[in-house]
Amino acid sequence: MLKPDTRKTAAGGVSPVERLHALVADAMAATDRMIHARMGSGVALIPELSKHLIDSGGKRLRPMLTLAAAQLGGYTGDKQINLAAAVEFIHTATLLHDDVVDASTLRRGKVAANLVWGNKATVLVGDFLFSRAFEMMVDTGSLRVLDILSHASAVIAEGEVMQLKSESNLGTTEEHYLKVVGAKTAALFAAAAESGATLCNKGPEFVEAMRAYGESLGIAFQLVDDALDYSGRQALMGKAVGDDFREAKVTLPVILAYARADKPAQQFWKRVIEGGPQSEPDLERAISYVESTGAIQETMTRARHYADVAVAALQSLAPSEIKAALADIADFCVERAF
Amino acid sequence: MLKPDTRKTAAGGVSPVERLHALVADAMAATDRMIHARMGSGVALIPELSKHLIDSGGKRLRPMLTLAAAQLGGYTGDKQINLAAAVEFIHTATLLHDDVVDASTLRRGKVAANLVWGNKATVLVGDFLFSRAFEMMVDTGSLRVLDILSHASAVIAEGEVMQLKSESNLGTTEEHYLKVVGAKTAALFAAAAESGATLCNKGPEFVEAMRAYGESLGIAFQLVDDALDYSGRQALMGKAVGDDFREAKVTLPVILAYARADKPAQQFWKRVIEGGPQSEPDLERAISYVESTGAIQETMTRARHYADVAVAALQSLAPSEIKAALADIADFCVERAF
Repeated sequence: MLKPDTRKTAAGGVSPVERLHALVADAMAATDRMIHARMGSGVALIPELSKHLIDSGGKRLRPMLTLAAAQLGGYTGDKQINLAAAVEFIHTATLLHDDVVDASTLRRGKVAANLVWGNKATVLVGDFLFSRAFEMMVDTGSLRVLDILSHASAVIAEGEVMQLKSESNLGTTEEHYLKVVGAKTAALFAAAAESGATLCNKGPEFVEAMRAYGESLGIAFQLVDDALDYSGRQALMGKAVGDDFREAKVTLPVILAYARADKPAQQFWKRVIEGGPQSEPDLERAISYVESTGAIQETMTRARHYADVAVAALQSLAPSEIKAALADIADFCVERAF
Repeated sequence: MLKPDTRKTAAGGVSPVERLHALVADAMAATDRMIHARMGSGVALIPELSKHLIDSGGKRLRPMLTLAAAQLGGYTGDKQINLAAAVEFIHTATLLHDDVVDASTLRRGKVAANLVWGNKATVLVGDFLFSRAFEMMVDTGSLRVLDILSHASAVIAEGEVMQLKSESNLGTTEEHYLKVVGAKTAALFAAAAESGATLCNKGPEFVEAMRAYGESLGIAFQLVDDALDYSGRQALMGKAVGDDFREAKVTLPVILAYARADKPAQQFWKRVIEGGPQSEPDLERAISYVESTGAIQETMTRARHYADVAVAALQSLAPSEIKAALADIADFCVERAF
């Protein structure tokens, strides 16, 4: 963690995510303690399997949004800790269930949980964390928060089911894709920020600003993620390049590259996405198509747009270090890809 | 559904579950309407897959407990409808996730959802129903109810994970088995009855009586279910006999039969439960061991005990048709096996 005296002076070398982390450091430490306490269970496999994902170096961006929103709104209680831990549990449960269903082999640079413990345990531990998240929310005594996050959870599941329809389907439209992203990713970013903001009694405008920020940040984040899956940089971050490709997910880079494809490229996409088996050179060829058609660049341009919308959502807020860090995170989210 | 004039006179030919159903018929009809309304989604696959399980002829025993508890306690509002629908959704989500993880092939006489729609959709629709359950609970505005059912959900997941440890493991103790049953099955029965009772403001004794009834009924119910899996009657109910056997689950009939096994029988159990592949004659041999050692009878005796405890839990309640039906359900649950 950053020391207080470095985080102001060394801003150039410190990512805005780290800056925000430092600004909410006490609350984040309390959240981490709660995460580790509440993933405990008399059933040893539960903390063991949870730890695998929870301690694997994720940035805790979503709970940080909850904490930042609460702090920005001047909240002085401690319910945001429960809430932030619940948000991280919902996110982790989603990842665990995604590991099972997508048969992906790498997650945050580690072997996916389902390959170590099997599908059964992975689904069930996800269910446990999800239930625990609701228990923690109940402890806040806030029905509003439960409303926001139970709704978001249903939307996330809808988004994941919608995504199934676009698998192996080159007829997937950009509109469908954006709906999926809005549901499976942006809904939790939005709910994380909104629920933290509702604790504050700062009025509906503040809550709406935080929700809107979270939502657009989430879309930008996912667009960049999907672009990175066709980029060599992804490998440096410990995630396998070509995950989406191997699972025949039709993400925006593919939608755009396919729309701009000549005959041979069209046939290539049909074979590798809608057709049969892929070989390793196929991924290289896909990356080259995605790059040469400008599909990556175009995906990043859309991401840039949503990052700008996220920053604009913060406009009405008084200047503060947290506001600045949130705005910079939106920019950084896009810039990390270059 | 039974007509009002038959349900009193024809009690001999009508199961107590049907009697209870008739006693809460209006609320049950409203619950069914809510179930069908709230499993709806703009994502067509969600109601399609949910319907497969929800409309497959389950008895809705768990939501009926919620409605019965509320009615017994003189509750006059309509929150029990949300609650009962939420309980059924949690149950359905559990079944869907169980279908995925256990690779069972028959569920209520139909092909398991995962074989029709795949693991992915089955896990995710389960997640959707689970989230929806919490949304419906939030609509009741009762934090107490959310507390009860979020805790029960976590306990259910713990129970399912605990059960994994006893798979293929003949060292499973009766104590471990009963812990699993208490968590994976009885917790939802208990929470279903308790949450309906908490709506009533009838005091903690009434709530505790309903909770205790639900818990013991749930244990009896699971014990009978596990006995039936080694019985020809199971086939008549549209469920595959030998499901637990094929999945190498170590249930009470197996624990007891193994404890009483002679050398050849011990070797048989080691081979089919801890060892390698099974053949169809193995199931017949297992059934014959389970029957000849008295393990089925002994399992049913334990079930009888828990049914008695369930009935005893109702003792303090004033006589009523609902109370009588609940008591008879506990007896019927055990007697259906003979």
